[in-house]
Amino acid sequence: MPAEKKATLLIKNIGQLVTMAGPVPRIGDQLCDIGIIEHGGIAAAGNEILRVGESDDVEGHSPLAEGCTVIDAAGAVVTPGLIDPHTHPVFSMTREKEFEMRLQGKSYMEIANAGGGIRASVRDLRTTPRQQLMEKTTERLDRMLRYGVTTIEAKSGYGLSTESEIKQLEVIRDLNQTHPIDMVPTFLGAHEIPDEYRNNRNGYIELIIDEMIPKVVEQHLAEFSDIFTEEGVYDIPESRKIQQAADDAGLKLKFHADELKSVGGAELAAEMKAVSADHLVYISEAGIKALASSGTVAVLLPGTTFSLAGKQYAPARKMIEEGVVVALSTDCNPGSSYSESLPFMVTLAALELKMTAAEAISAVTVNAACAINREGVIGQLQPGMSADMVVWNMADYRELPYHYAVNLVAKVIKAGKLVVNN
Amino acid sequence: MPAEKKATLLIKNIGQLVTMAGPVPRIGDQLCDIGIIEHGGIAAAGNEILRVGESDDVEGHSPLAEGCTVIDAAGAVVTPGLIDPHTHPVFSMTREKEFEMRLQGKSYMEIANAGGGIRASVRDLRTTPRQQLMEKTTERLDRMLRYGVTTIEAKSGYGLSTESEIKQLEVIRDLNQTHPIDMVPTFLGAHEIPDEYRNNRNGYIELIIDEMIPKVVEQHLAEFSDIFTEEGVYDIPESRKIQQAADDAGLKLKFHADELKSVGGAELAAEMKAVSADHLVYISEAGIKALASSGTVAVLLPGTTFSLAGKQYAPARKMIEEGVVVALSTDCNPGSSYSESLPFMVTLAALELKMTAAEAISAVTVNAACAINREGVIGQLQPGMSADMVVWNMADYRELPYHYAVNLVAKVIKAGKLVVNN
Repeated sequence: MPAEKKATLLIKNIGQLVTMAGPVPRIGDQLCDIGIIEHGGIAAAGNEILRVGESDDVEGHSPLAEGCTVIDAAGAVVTPGLIDPHTHPVFSMTREKEFEMRLQGKSYMEIANAGGGIRASVRDLRTTPRQQLMEKTTERLDRMLRYGVTTIEAKSGYGLSTESEIKQLEVIRDLNQTHPIDMVPTFLGAHEIPDEYRNNRNGYIELIIDEMIPKVVEQHLAEFSDIFTEEGVYDIPESRKIQQAADDAGLKLKFHADELKSVGGAELAAEMKAVSADHLVYISEAGIKALASSGTVAVLLPGTTFSLAGKQYAPARKMIEEGVVVALSTDCNPGSSYSESLPFMVTLAALELKMTAAEAISAVTVNAACAINREGVIGQLQPGMSADMVVWNMADYRELPYHYAVNLVAKVIKAGKLVVNN
Repeated sequence: MPAEKKATLLIKNIGQLVTMAGPVPRIGDQLCDIGIIEHGGIAAAGNEILRVGESDDVEGHSPLAEGCTVIDAAGAVVTPGLIDPHTHPVFSMTREKEFEMRLQGKSYMEIANAGGGIRASVRDLRTTPRQQLMEKTTERLDRMLRYGVTTIEAKSGYGLSTESEIKQLEVIRDLNQTHPIDMVPTFLGAHEIPDEYRNNRNGYIELIIDEMIPKVVEQHLAEFSDIFTEEGVYDIPESRKIQQAADDAGLKLKFHADELKSVGGAELAAEMKAVSADHLVYISEAGIKALASSGTVAVLLPGTTFSLAGKQYAPARKMIEEGVVVALSTDCNPGSSYSESLPFMVTLAALELKMTAAEAISAVTVNAACAINREGVIGQLQPGMSADMVVWNMADYRELPYHYAVNLVAKVIKAGKLVVNN
């Protein structure tokens, strides 16, 4: 008989333990069931959850290791660590002047002439020393962690040259070794066409396919390939070609789809069995049906609409009704959505996407795990899964969207360790 | 020759020292001038600012007291401590269920029947022990302070009986003695008509005038009298009558005006020389001209529109063009806007009110001071004024609205003391 594992972490007296036990992914009405145990407890050994249940029961059946961390939640809410499945965190230059110019009615050309836009970020990143990128990215990861996020997807896409794309992905790889937040890396060489290829877009597409993707795969720098499929950026045939090459090379697929216009991005993502299609503000009826049928996760980014002062948000309710797997993310990036707060996206989901608190919590935990191919590992509090969790300064999970734009995180546990104690 | 005062606080190497030197209040184009000193420094002795200028100059001319706190801002932004001029922070019960019901399309009656609405807060407050109110309010004040707020206006209005209104004002008075945040107390007995007076509104108005106001004044529990002037709450003649009694008793005046409908609230506020008129989503053209002419501060509360998922925001640009003094506030309360983050209101001001970062910063400092009768004391960093200031994790003040829904405060100094060190 093997020795029973002893708990190195015990949280007791949890008012609402949001386990997310149940179907993976969540669709339709399933999104409303977040698996609450009232007066709950949870025990873990290292990064493995051992027991989840009634507080007294868990405490009574969990022998404690020496030096075990025991937390009395005193009636607070505990959820899985939040998962942000769409971020662009590796950059140095912020673009606050562009934000103000846009809101004051300046045109795209005026902003570009004043040094704004995505290609401004590219020019900056190429010349930024690696150490500076590490420091700036670390500040953002620290902030995410303080707001309850324990795993993120992180994209390249401000390099747009083989060297600079790899530089971004290496920053992600190196920080993944040292920072508590886990990062799932995505190659986004097809984020834009860089300045030097404006008159030779096919040349850049060939560079992506013939040089970037092979090197990224060879060096194990990414799990996903993403692309900005949009009018004026990559059209549908170009997107299919690039993503087919990525798929052939063994990368899983994501798409920036139908953000500004309905161009069939969702349909292409479904056709190519992408793991996720993201943005989807202008997704078509056919696109919704296609995603529901393929099981591709719709990653909604309400912060981007918000931060661009847009009026049109993704049709979340219609997607949920049609059985699409819906997740939420910050889109954290210097141009269109500079925020590390995934809890605030839960507020926007309530206000603008008309999602309930339970639906939105499903969308930043279990469904967000599906969007980055981590289902069954994170996003739920179940025996055998990772010990990533958040203790919140609230007695009812519905406070999360309602009490807005402030940090309600009390403690963050990542891989069984207490890493934030606000 | 008197001995020169020695500095007990010195902040040097400030990238942008936002002094707010200049006109008080700020109107029109003046809002854009926030008095920046680049590479600035500031010295204080206790709660008195001694010197403001170039970093080297301030350092060179400020003899330091023993144990002086010296902060190297390393290029960061420093502003005056933020001032929140409209809050309802004294309550226990949160109303997250009502928030969700409203967003899911439930009617006002369904919400009221489920125990929601302002009168639910009244029922709860009346039975909440004073100690519990102190604790819950302290949590909110702590959070405000962490987000850079050093002075607030705080209202009663969930008591609606002489005893319970006084209970709320005494909580404000007592916390004012012990908490770093300074509170300017406002009596808001005319927040609603309580349950027991639904069929006798004149009886309640008499109670306010004949009993509440005299007791509040006698016990020095409030500086201001506020009223919810709105269709279905207090109409214009009732508002004039109650506020005239408050004015006669020596209280200064504030109005909740034209929040849901244009009812002439702004015009009445101007007529009665109120210090501020607040909300103003539906202010009339005549109301705007009246406020501009009377100098009454327009306190705008974009978080309330946001948190109610409204589409209509106060016409800030038109007010600024017409010369109205504009300030911003959270409206922190459990029903329509539960947030302690005044920085987030700067983001909403940019996105929804189309105010620039500089205008919004003027609106949460110097103009907010005017809204609570503290001009010349707080809201600017000038010799002789209070040493309330915030060191921000940013190199350019325009990052404040742009980098949204996260806490960018590095340090808060209140009355010359370092009270937050994030």
